[in-house]
Amino acid sequence: MTGKPLTLALPKGRLLKPALELLNRLGVDGVDMASRKLIFTDAQRGLRVLILKPADIPTYVEYGAADLGIVGRDMLLEQAPDVYEPLDLGFGFCRLVVAESEELWGRDDPAKWSWVRVATKYPNLTERYFSERGIQVELVRLDGSIELAPLVGLAERIVDLVQSGETLRANGLVEVAEIVRSTARLIVNRASLKTAYGPISAWIGAMKREVAR
Amino acid sequence: MTGKPLTLALPKGRLLKPALELLNRLGVDGVDMASRKLIFTDAQRGLRVLILKPADIPTYVEYGAADLGIVGRDMLLEQAPDVYEPLDLGFGFCRLVVAESEELWGRDDPAKWSWVRVATKYPNLTERYFSERGIQVELVRLDGSIELAPLVGLAERIVDLVQSGETLRANGLVEVAEIVRSTARLIVNRASLKTAYGPISAWIGAMKREVAR
Repeated sequence: MTGKPLTLALPKGRLLKPALELLNRLGVDGVDMASRKLIFTDAQRGLRVLILKPADIPTYVEYGAADLGIVGRDMLLEQAPDVYEPLDLGFGFCRLVVAESEELWGRDDPAKWSWVRVATKYPNLTERYFSERGIQVELVRLDGSIELAPLVGLAERIVDLVQSGETLRANGLVEVAEIVRSTARLIVNRASLKTAYGPISAWIGAMKREVAR
Repeated sequence: MTGKPLTLALPKGRLLKPALELLNRLGVDGVDMASRKLIFTDAQRGLRVLILKPADIPTYVEYGAADLGIVGRDMLLEQAPDVYEPLDLGFGFCRLVVAESEELWGRDDPAKWSWVRVATKYPNLTERYFSERGIQVELVRLDGSIELAPLVGLAERIVDLVQSGETLRANGLVEVAEIVRSTARLIVNRASLKTAYGPISAWIGAMKREVAR
């Protein structure tokens, strides 16, 4: 793992800690989660680490500004970037679901949906899910706090990520359908895989062995 | 200011503190910035306050899930929501600018631009700015940390908000053109303005007087 340093993009948020733990087990350190810095260099391992918004990771890797990236499958399915995806890292399990208020669920029947208004951060996956079922969907695209939308009358239904389900419960919402399951994935820029095949396949192999333990 | 409570949407982030200070001067309290709660009610003033991502404020107000909202002019110009915009609140001054590395600026001439690649959170404003000048633009749409893009080779130029300019300087970037200036604005749902004309115009008037002091 010498030569031109590789760049690895890691997502801020819930995947950062397990991603850094994986890197630590592979001998990479020097990335300080508490720091406000966004670029770290491990010269010895020939690795530069970027800390980015999760939604930006596919872009950085597709354009080659990062050779490697770690990002949730949810984001890959939503954005469909042209990248190589060699490895399921196993951590960061969550599910993208349709949810609505308990009150609505008491009198609702998904089999009768012909038109729904849905608030979400995942417009592409949401559109595809409902379209495949012959249901017309009006998307309300939001940036955050999706669980608020039914409470304040913005949209009766939401499509959002759930982990424990605690956020749904705390807001009086219930899951009514599962769209997709997600874990963290390793992604690789297609050109980098050719120009730096040796070091990149060494990283992939090392991660694969570590994940298989 | 009695009757059905009005809903006011406030943006998380840099505009929240001055927005709450304005509300405090108008007698609204009970909104705890340190709390993780997103909905607050001031029953005495007939006001419900939502704390939202800035990008979601125009959506909430356009759909009527909030009657009133406070949001930067930058966001209004980017999203062009169908809302009433009665008042410039004066605070939250910032500018949307084109920036690039000092090194590039030393040999660059904007008068000769015919094609640029630009990373930004403001695709609509960016596209319009360059199109109006006859310059083709390839947009790299990002969610955060735009200032990183030139450092890592994602895009030579960025379009981003600046306040003090400190973030640009810290990353070796210089401003090369100003696109637009922004301050916080009060926005109002068009239907609410008719159905709750009395209380809404009372709030607009009170804010106007407070801002004029």
